[in-house]
Amino acid sequence: MSSAAGQVIRCKAAVAWEAAKPLVIEEVEVAPPQAMEVRLKILFTSLCHTDVYFWEAKGQTPLFPRIFGHEAGGIVESVGEGVTELKPGDHVLPVFTGECKECQHCKSEESNMCDLLRINTDRGVMLNDGKSRFSIRGQPIYHFVGTSTFSEYTVVHVGCVAKINPAAPLDKVCVLSCGISTGLGATLNVAKPKKGSSVAIFGLGAVGLAAAEGARIAGASRIIGVDLNSNRFDEAKKFGVTEFVNPKDYTKPVQEVIAEMTNGGVDRSVECTGSINAMISAFECVHDGWGVAVLVGVPNKDDSFKTHPMNFLNERTLKGTFFGNYKPRSDLPSVVEKYMNKELELEKFITHEVPFSEINKAFEYMLSGAGLRCIIRMDA
Amino acid sequence: MSSAAGQVIRCKAAVAWEAAKPLVIEEVEVAPPQAMEVRLKILFTSLCHTDVYFWEAKGQTPLFPRIFGHEAGGIVESVGEGVTELKPGDHVLPVFTGECKECQHCKSEESNMCDLLRINTDRGVMLNDGKSRFSIRGQPIYHFVGTSTFSEYTVVHVGCVAKINPAAPLDKVCVLSCGISTGLGATLNVAKPKKGSSVAIFGLGAVGLAAAEGARIAGASRIIGVDLNSNRFDEAKKFGVTEFVNPKDYTKPVQEVIAEMTNGGVDRSVECTGSINAMISAFECVHDGWGVAVLVGVPNKDDSFKTHPMNFLNERTLKGTFFGNYKPRSDLPSVVEKYMNKELELEKFITHEVPFSEINKAFEYMLSGAGLRCIIRMDA
Ligand SMILES: NC(=O)c1ccc[n+]([C@@H]2O[C@H](COP(=O)([O-])OP(=O)(O)OC[C@H]3O[C@@H](n4cnc5c(N)ncnc54)[C@H](O)[C@@H]3O)[C@@H](O)[C@H]2O)c1
Ligand SMILES: NC(=O)c1ccc[n+]([C@@H]2O[C@H](COP(=O)([O-])OP(=O)(O)OC[C@H]3O[C@@H](n4cnc5c(N)ncnc54)[C@H](O)[C@@H]3O)[C@@H](O)[C@H]2O)c1
Ligand SMILES: [Zn+2]
Ligand SMILES: [Zn+2]
Ligand SMILES: [Zn+2]
Ligand SMILES: [Zn+2]
Repeated sequence: MSSAAGQVIRCKAAVAWEAAKPLVIEEVEVAPPQAMEVRLKILFTSLCHTDVYFWEAKGQTPLFPRIFGHEAGGIVESVGEGVTELKPGDHVLPVFTGECKECQHCKSEESNMCDLLRINTDRGVMLNDGKSRFSIRGQPIYHFVGTSTFSEYTVVHVGCVAKINPAAPLDKVCVLSCGISTGLGATLNVAKPKKGSSVAIFGLGAVGLAAAEGARIAGASRIIGVDLNSNRFDEAKKFGVTEFVNPKDYTKPVQEVIAEMTNGGVDRSVECTGSINAMISAFECVHDGWGVAVLVGVPNKDDSFKTHPMNFLNERTLKGTFFGNYKPRSDLPSVVEKYMNKELELEKFITHEVPFSEINKAFEYMLSGAGLRCIIRMDA
Repeated sequence: MSSAAGQVIRCKAAVAWEAAKPLVIEEVEVAPPQAMEVRLKILFTSLCHTDVYFWEAKGQTPLFPRIFGHEAGGIVESVGEGVTELKPGDHVLPVFTGECKECQHCKSEESNMCDLLRINTDRGVMLNDGKSRFSIRGQPIYHFVGTSTFSEYTVVHVGCVAKINPAAPLDKVCVLSCGISTGLGATLNVAKPKKGSSVAIFGLGAVGLAAAEGARIAGASRIIGVDLNSNRFDEAKKFGVTEFVNPKDYTKPVQEVIAEMTNGGVDRSVECTGSINAMISAFECVHDGWGVAVLVGVPNKDDSFKTHPMNFLNERTLKGTFFGNYKPRSDLPSVVEKYMNKELELEKFITHEVPFSEINKAFEYMLSGAGLRCIIRMDA
């Protein structure tokens, strides 16, 4: 155990005091982990749209001051009571959703939607005592999705921590905490394209490109990228996308365009946009008889998925996935191994890097749509 | 070969001269089979809703005079040019949809929606020459879904004929030509419930009860029958249905009733009603994380399937099936074997029997909702 075990740690964290205002690097106090919690030293973190979305807090009940951040790599500093699976020094990825290993979802082979630790964006406190582990001069600072990785140290429930190969470079594999695993798993675990098959990917952001990477790994022979923004197409070529469709270039619905390109439809599609129109198109563009469409994007509250039921009866399948159907503790270590084996390429997702002191630049890159992932180095 | 091979056969057939008027037993001429066709002697046929639906011809372009019938068991009388898989004397089930073994659907392991021989209710003629094989004094009589089994002899495309075990009693296995296989396959091939799981069946007609039979065979521990008609519940007990829900008995949506009964939802559901409301409920009543819903019922033209996309993102799957995903020639023989092994019970589906001369009684039973299947004996 480190000398600080059981003690409060004072360290730097990037605090969001108000919605949509630049983060401020502050000295915070991080309380020791309680029962079933671990305290992590974060080495690298990256920025995801979900951080920006809750930081902007549009149309939400705002929860501030808060420490954002949920894609990261770190090392266990100390563990709380009852934690037996992790020890100080272990290399880990914290995850915004968890795996208690005891609920009906964790016990099901198919689900990763843990009843206890499923993502909760409204909760800003730890489960054990309903309180925050962060404070500044006695004022509590809220957590974000149980991870709050924009801090040199953070406290996380043990069920939200994946122990990984210590040889894995944390400045690369940290991006596996959220979006990249989500897109990759949507293809590999849910759509499951066969070698030689055709796959359409709707939305070529980080999640969609990770879905394309999954299709490349699975040996798909045609990977059709669909995006309303044609600027995305150049980058997408690096991810094995072979053809591009911008729905704006056609008067007919994009599902018809794709059906014509593929003699009746693609074998698989993966929707990574959050747009209800793209969800419907992604479903209707798969081939009858065997096509499978997978929804990944988070829709709006009032959206309604509408299609003629004959589209199902003609033997199409529609599924959705959460975090690519990966169970955080059981499955993420093997995704890290895919990177270590050079099966999975992560470097191409990392387009920017900034020191922690310049974390607001990462927000600017994302807001301007530049690049995919910006790595934030905590030691700089 | 029988002595009639290559000759016209004169025999009895039940002809529908006009929509919704009683069938008339007539002497018809049945031409010899052409290339890739076989002529069958029908021994037993049964009546399905689809016959009644096209005989009533409400809201359709009527096609009369026509010989209906598509669930049957018979014996090959003679074969046309190019037919090598069947020979006179083979015991067979004709099927309303086919398997050419050459199109992309037939070559796919997953699909049974043959491009060449997929059901076509508008076509009243044979594919080879676009003509009918039936006539009365020179007037052609239309075929129905390529089978027209309400005739002592009929001509069918070889791709629509399943060769089965000659020891199987044709007066029982004839019901496997359509609805019973559809419901059974929807559960066994598509929903695939695990042993000990919970299954909801929407609609307890012959198709739904066959889906329940599939759940019983798969070892489901709870089979929840849902029907708007509580009269169906007594019969359904014979099919292993353990619990009943009539949506009319509740003010809240039936999907909520089922979720409460099952701690969050059933593992699988199979919709066998044709009602769009039941389709939506069947989807929304499956458990998040792993639930799979299968649509079987044929919807109305203007129906729209609507649900919130989060219901998919919470890891539910929706599929549809056509003829229970069975490939007629490749798979039906093994369904017959399930009956021969006593795994599948068919007797309980057969509630009535009439001689061919009284075929209109079978229509009356179905129109009054009495029973499930009425066997029509051709030799009586
Ligand atoms: N299910 C999960 O577990 C999970 C996890 C992380 C992210 N997500 C979701 O995945 C989605 C994608 O995330 P991202 O970070 O890659 O977002 P992003 O904004 O970087 O990329 C989305 C892309 O979709 C394109 N797009 C929008 N509407 C479209 C349409 N109608 N047709 C075609 N393209 C369209 C945009 O132009 C953009 O390029 C988001 O909805 C996000 O919330 C889901
Ligand atoms: N997909 C295929 O290959 C295939 C093949 C044969 C039949 N079918 C279809 O399967 C369906 C069932 O066929 P069947 O012969 O058993 O019909 P049926 O009319 O005997 O049974 C349907 C049952 O559904 C019940 N029902 C209707 N609306 C309901 C609702 N909203 N909620 C609950 N129950 C409801 C009715 O009361 C009835 O008992 C039909 O739509 C038929 O066209 C499909
Ligand atoms: Zn759990
Ligand atoms: Zn994220
Ligand atoms: Zn075919
Ligand atoms: Zn039928």
